[in-house]
Amino acid sequence: MSDRFVFTLHKTDGGARLGEIATPRGVVRTPAFMTVGTAGTVKAVYTDQLAAAGADIVLANTYHLMLRPGAERISRLGGLHRFMRWERPIITDSGGFQVMSLAKLRKITDAGVAFQSHIDGSSHLLTPERAIGIQCLLGSDIQMQLDECIALPATPQETRAAVDRSLAWAVRCRDEFARQAADGRAGPGQALFGIVQGGIDSELRARSADGLVAMDLPGYAVGGLAVGETQEAMLATLELTTRRLPADKPRYLMGVGTPDDLIASVARGVDMFDCVMPTRAGRHGLAFTWTGKVNLKNARHADDPAPLDPASTCPAARDYSRAYLHHLVKSQEYLGAMLLSWANVAFYQQLMAAMRAAIAEGRFATWAAETRARLEETSAA
Amino acid sequence: MSDRFVFTLHKTDGGARLGEIATPRGVVRTPAFMTVGTAGTVKAVYTDQLAAAGADIVLANTYHLMLRPGAERISRLGGLHRFMRWERPIITDSGGFQVMSLAKLRKITDAGVAFQSHIDGSSHLLTPERAIGIQCLLGSDIQMQLDECIALPATPQETRAAVDRSLAWAVRCRDEFARQAADGRAGPGQALFGIVQGGIDSELRARSADGLVAMDLPGYAVGGLAVGETQEAMLATLELTTRRLPADKPRYLMGVGTPDDLIASVARGVDMFDCVMPTRAGRHGLAFTWTGKVNLKNARHADDPAPLDPASTCPAARDYSRAYLHHLVKSQEYLGAMLLSWANVAFYQQLMAAMRAAIAEGRFATWAAETRARLEETSAA
Repeated sequence: MSDRFVFTLHKTDGGARLGEIATPRGVVRTPAFMTVGTAGTVKAVYTDQLAAAGADIVLANTYHLMLRPGAERISRLGGLHRFMRWERPIITDSGGFQVMSLAKLRKITDAGVAFQSHIDGSSHLLTPERAIGIQCLLGSDIQMQLDECIALPATPQETRAAVDRSLAWAVRCRDEFARQAADGRAGPGQALFGIVQGGIDSELRARSADGLVAMDLPGYAVGGLAVGETQEAMLATLELTTRRLPADKPRYLMGVGTPDDLIASVARGVDMFDCVMPTRAGRHGLAFTWTGKVNLKNARHADDPAPLDPASTCPAARDYSRAYLHHLVKSQEYLGAMLLSWANVAFYQQLMAAMRAAIAEGRFATWAAETRARLEETSAA
Repeated sequence: MSDRFVFTLHKTDGGARLGEIATPRGVVRTPAFMTVGTAGTVKAVYTDQLAAAGADIVLANTYHLMLRPGAERISRLGGLHRFMRWERPIITDSGGFQVMSLAKLRKITDAGVAFQSHIDGSSHLLTPERAIGIQCLLGSDIQMQLDECIALPATPQETRAAVDRSLAWAVRCRDEFARQAADGRAGPGQALFGIVQGGIDSELRARSADGLVAMDLPGYAVGGLAVGETQEAMLATLELTTRRLPADKPRYLMGVGTPDDLIASVARGVDMFDCVMPTRAGRHGLAFTWTGKVNLKNARHADDPAPLDPASTCPAARDYSRAYLHHLVKSQEYLGAMLLSWANVAFYQQLMAAMRAAIAEGRFATWAAETRARLEETSAA
């Protein structure tokens, strides 16, 4: 705990970093995986289950919450923590990414993004100032700057223009965050992160990173990756980006990813991740385990009395047979999605805990090689 | 606990009865509400939540389980209790009712019911012997005879023929249950109930009840009610039926009902109920509370910080605001169905506990009148 937002780097092991972010809401142990709770709920999972699984922080989506139930309403109800019954840290995105992927009639100008709600067609304008205003209304502990997420493929000119606009918006977000803090609507325990853009262009990534680092923000995210490029291209861009970021600030790789992606990215100095993968996979009958990915739809599980993982501390992975999970998935029962989402959320936390232990003991590279091989081998089987 | 199936009547208060059914799997306190877990899961509810809510027993549907995942498979996996992770008593229906409402190409003869699965079109024959065989494979603690559930409206001749066929099937079920017991596939802790049919015809109800009572079965159900008739007609038929049933055997009113139905039926000597209402309502945004039914879809809840019931011992009813529940329901989030199903299952158990307490203290009639007025008044508001 801390009355301020404080990142402490405890140890490095190769490129991998062990640390923690202290906030008034609690400590986030890094490397951290931040489970996605889009509309103020991690789909099919209770917050008590999340906490018991070892999650220190969840991510909520500004775009969804601003449209329904509305940021002002959540503020009147006491903020997002109370609303969703999660008292530990919450990170929110700026809404920009999801405006580009979900909203209708988007129009981007230097002022911001005008769009129509995908829910009811209502018109909205998301500016850098409004993005911060919403996140302050929600009471978000880690807030993200509004950035421009360009459609792919993009020309170098388009990518560069988006980088420059995102830098200009970062300044406006920082200034708005300072105003909110001066007005008592944001505290020293809350932080604003910048987002490095630039596609897979090394020069633009450097330009974006350097511009943000010059602003001395409390943390930096890497955006615009895992959008269809190869893992190799993603890791190469990630590596040259993190190299330009200061060691004493947390680094957050947005929207990533598979267990393999997480391990490879931690090796390149990433401290924080978010991804819908564990919960979305759970709703589609897929389980992540230490012996690889398991497709519970497959008929080979129909008679299998074994649980997903008898050694797991998560009841969903430990106490129910694969035969039962198969039955639930085939029958499209709620409990199938509930158990598999829970098991996956817990597995991702176990994976992060194992990484932190390996870094603490200075054996991350060995652990990573063994684990990546094991996960790949058995998933292919 | 008991190594046999034993019903004990502790006390009567007017027509209302306080008792318990002891089985090797645990005690069922009566009057009891048996939550429906159709396909081996109470939809959107964990078995731990059920147990904590005070549920002593759940109901599973033979029709669904015989088709998927199959009774033999569940038996190989150690029985239904282990399969669904519920170690307390389980009651199963015979499958007959759901064959008539769900299956395709049904054909009833004296032999049994031939039908095609609504899932994959496969052909099946459900005989009285097979209905018991399946229930023994599942390991059901309370098994139901196969009966003929006629389509309504029916002529007196059709109703009478169904009564007589159901009586003949009851004999075959009893004989099959005895064979299964002799073969060690059913134990003295398990019981077979007969089902009184006869529509709302008092003479046929009497004929059916008398025929079953002559068989000296361990319990008797009243079937074929709550199928569209008025509550008044249901209660009149119920009253004349329970009057013919022996006082020392449990009485089970199948498929009922609303809180008001339960209270009125307990007043007429019913000991056991099952109904999909609490879980189905929960999935549709409706909550049952001591101050009436609450439709969480309604916009008037959007800004309401109050929980469903601050005095409830159920976290779903106590710890989440109506505003949050409204948001979850409007957003069609899993957690909305999860919380409301949980709250409703718990409310139904609280309702039964309150009835048992009122009977124990000899004030059931007063309690019932007050409670029925309160529930109706506020629901209408």
